[in-house]
Amino acid sequence: MKYFDYAASAPLYPEVLVELTKSFAEDFANPNAIHSLGYDLFEKIESHRASFLKNLGAKASDKFYFLSSATEANNTVIKGLKINVDDIIFYSPADHPSVVVPVESLGAKHESFKILDNGLIDEEDFTERLKNHPATKLVVLTLVNNQSGMIQDVLKLAELTKKYSSAHVHIDAVQGLGKIPFKLSSHIDSVSVTSHKIGGPKGVAGLYLKSSHKVNPLIIGGGQEEGFRSSTVAYPLIAAFHLASMISLKNLEINLQKNNAIKEEVTNKLKSLHEEIIFPFQERSSGHILMFIVPGISSDILIRHLEREKIYLSSTSACSSRISGFNPTLMAMNIEEKFHKNVIRLSLGVPTTKEEGLLFVDKFSEIYHNIKKIQKKK
Amino acid sequence: MKYFDYAASAPLYPEVLVELTKSFAEDFANPNAIHSLGYDLFEKIESHRASFLKNLGAKASDKFYFLSSATEANNTVIKGLKINVDDIIFYSPADHPSVVVPVESLGAKHESFKILDNGLIDEEDFTERLKNHPATKLVVLTLVNNQSGMIQDVLKLAELTKKYSSAHVHIDAVQGLGKIPFKLSSHIDSVSVTSHKIGGPKGVAGLYLKSSHKVNPLIIGGGQEEGFRSSTVAYPLIAAFHLASMISLKNLEINLQKNNAIKEEVTNKLKSLHEEIIFPFQERSSGHILMFIVPGISSDILIRHLEREKIYLSSTSACSSRISGFNPTLMAMNIEEKFHKNVIRLSLGVPTTKEEGLLFVDKFSEIYHNIKKIQKKK
Repeated sequence: MKYFDYAASAPLYPEVLVELTKSFAEDFANPNAIHSLGYDLFEKIESHRASFLKNLGAKASDKFYFLSSATEANNTVIKGLKINVDDIIFYSPADHPSVVVPVESLGAKHESFKILDNGLIDEEDFTERLKNHPATKLVVLTLVNNQSGMIQDVLKLAELTKKYSSAHVHIDAVQGLGKIPFKLSSHIDSVSVTSHKIGGPKGVAGLYLKSSHKVNPLIIGGGQEEGFRSSTVAYPLIAAFHLASMISLKNLEINLQKNNAIKEEVTNKLKSLHEEIIFPFQERSSGHILMFIVPGISSDILIRHLEREKIYLSSTSACSSRISGFNPTLMAMNIEEKFHKNVIRLSLGVPTTKEEGLLFVDKFSEIYHNIKKIQKKK
Repeated sequence: MKYFDYAASAPLYPEVLVELTKSFAEDFANPNAIHSLGYDLFEKIESHRASFLKNLGAKASDKFYFLSSATEANNTVIKGLKINVDDIIFYSPADHPSVVVPVESLGAKHESFKILDNGLIDEEDFTERLKNHPATKLVVLTLVNNQSGMIQDVLKLAELTKKYSSAHVHIDAVQGLGKIPFKLSSHIDSVSVTSHKIGGPKGVAGLYLKSSHKVNPLIIGGGQEEGFRSSTVAYPLIAAFHLASMISLKNLEINLQKNNAIKEEVTNKLKSLHEEIIFPFQERSSGHILMFIVPGISSDILIRHLEREKIYLSSTSACSSRISGFNPTLMAMNIEEKFHKNVIRLSLGVPTTKEEGLLFVDKFSEIYHNIKKIQKKK
């Protein structure tokens, strides 16, 4: 099996699986229980929390809360700021549905950033909008786009935001954590990260919040996570998420270089073999995501054929895989509608090898030629 | 180690740990991915969903959604009904904070049930209130109280609700699922259940919803769980939760009888040894929870001393363990305030043996006598 869908979900690191199993076996107490079985886990959670803050470059007085998913984290910030109907939110429909859907459903005014043809946010336009709307309440930015791999300069955009407004700056860093270097600046108010994209288990994620944040909790009750996220705290998932983040950060540079090299080689081979293929985003795109357009062949068909060869990959985000035809995410990236059904997303992970990349090119080319042959006969 | 805090959280069944580990190792794909690795998991989730519905006695057309915790499930229903400030909610402050806190924070009118001295909801008073307030929007009932073990006749109360109103009837069945027999009736609109109380992993729970429900989702985005709960679906947690529920249901009667017998024996021994101890709730209390009051000795001290003997138990719910002094949950159960610091909750699980129960009585008695001796000297 050749797996190229790491951006949708990644396998656990072997060490993480061991830690997770051990913790699920031994650490069964409720971390909020009054006895030491609970309290010992509570202390370990605090230590993991501090470690995440440190790794993000945050202050020890800032907050990092564990919750169940990045979708929950994004929902919490967007809904928790008590945004009024007259307030303005800046965002991009090119972002993940867990940002786009809550923003668009709040009932407040929302304006999308202008995305340049190279996939980057137009900084001039961004600045103009903020100047015209100094009462902007929320700016949502995505560090690495899940579809295109585009890396936005969120530090610069956050700085611009704070220069012209007092808006809350939220960063969706789900596809960035542990994949590209990232440290917080003082202009960032909150950040969502998740476990299952970096070799940790599904069912756990994190939300960084600057200590001066004004976000209200979404899930209330027993007052766990300092009252910010009530629910029995799932210690084993947190321990495993923490370990996965440590491994990812430790090996970040080496994995990034490896994936950049594989991506470059795959791109060049595909370009030389099939000049019709379009690579819309090349500048500043992360090493683990390669998006391209195959004009004239439906990505569904390509994916089905590749699957027969036990090669697994995606067209769009798993979270919007049920969308067919017109795709608002792709539209926001300036991809012409006629190509929306022709998009392939190849995403690489820590275990991905150069040989796998070359095998993909071979199999893809074979399938591509066969389909083209059939199309000509018709 | 002797663990008597199963109502706070239970260890995983060994079979569940095996299943969970296997699934975390193998089932890493995103269940919403377009390829078969994802789709195969999606199909399995649908089969687990159908199984939960069947086991609850629900219709196949009803809904059962997987989410991260019972707190999330309770929040989803309470916040998702779009209750207006003039609407009335009936609930009890004796319930779990994940019910009480959202109900009390909604801004709507909320009235608490009258609890009789035996711990049961006063059905006459319940009926009168509904007759007086036919526009009641929501009635929240708890199947088994997490503190006292009291089993409410939720089927009867749900029937009464629907006789006099069109209120949504929500049942918190977290401490009931897999512990006492429970089947839905047509008068129940939603039910929360969770995994970690029945030998499954933390981080996953379930929400039953009648097909005609009017609950809006709390977490929105990619549209997973039929749009009712967006987030990457954590398949391994769901598979393990499902297995834990099947094992619990299969052995329900035998475990219930065993725990009932242990509870009775512990109660009788404690009564005969220490006549001052008060057992407020004996009638219709579930076999896995024994709450009692030790007048004159702080439960904190008893718990600390028992812990030195590696005996672990609680005073109140882990979700309200940080409350000291006056306890609104206990007040709602008609426990005099002077006894709020003297409450012990012993909770039994599947692995609990009669010998462990008797050992608890011995150690408790030893500690009890030692403390009494010291108190007399002072």
